Amino acid sequence: MNVFELEKVQERELAPGFFARMVHSGNMTFAYWRILEGSGLPAHSHPHEQVVNLLEGTFELTVAGESRVLVPGNDVVVVPPNAPHSGRALTLCRILDVFYPVREDYR
Amino acid sequence: MNVFELEKVQERELAPGFFARMVHSGNMTFAYWRILEGSGLPAHSHPHEQVVNLLEGTFELTVAGESRVLVPGNDVVVVPPNAPHSGRALTLCRILDVFYPVREDYR
Repeated sequence: MNVFELEKVQERELAPGFFARMVHSGNMTFAYWRILEGSGLPAHSHPHEQVVNLLEGTFELTVAGESRVLVPGNDVVVVPPNAPHSGRALTLCRILDVFYPVREDYR
Repeated sequence: MNVFELEKVQERELAPGFFARMVHSGNMTFAYWRILEGSGLPAHSHPHEQVVNLLEGTFELTVAGESRVLVPGNDVVVVPPNAPHSGRALTLCRILDVFYPVREDYR
């Protein structure tokens, strides 16, 4: 069985305060983030479709200039390919981002 | 912003004890499951790649004849296209399954 145990996956700090464990399937990348309170990511974009799942905490996401404070366990956001987006953790957050296709830059 | 609020998405019982809310992005389907204790799904397969994220509870997953009791928040399982798989909720479970491509049969 093709199982990835997250606690055995190396956590990497990809931006200040943004720590991730990555799992790549055949077609998708799963980024399990732990984001420190107050940490922000400036606007960026990529050709991958991204789906944001806020698991815990309070996170303000901005997509194409529109901002929203996400409700954990409830709000699921689809970021279209190439859409500029940014975000800020208002508290300690756990987020699962799913990308299609695979983020080769995250391997 | 393309936000899906799960509590506004209709929950459907797709098999006895297996309740799901579905979110479809451009390329993927996200199934947010609530599975009652003791509920089981017989072996089945589909051409979609599937990635299983056990969020809460204890779930026994079988893929291609191999079984494993998943650790919530830790074990991420990639089910390859067309691999037969089945499962049983040993307690009340919450699972996020992600499929590529979109499950048109779940729309």
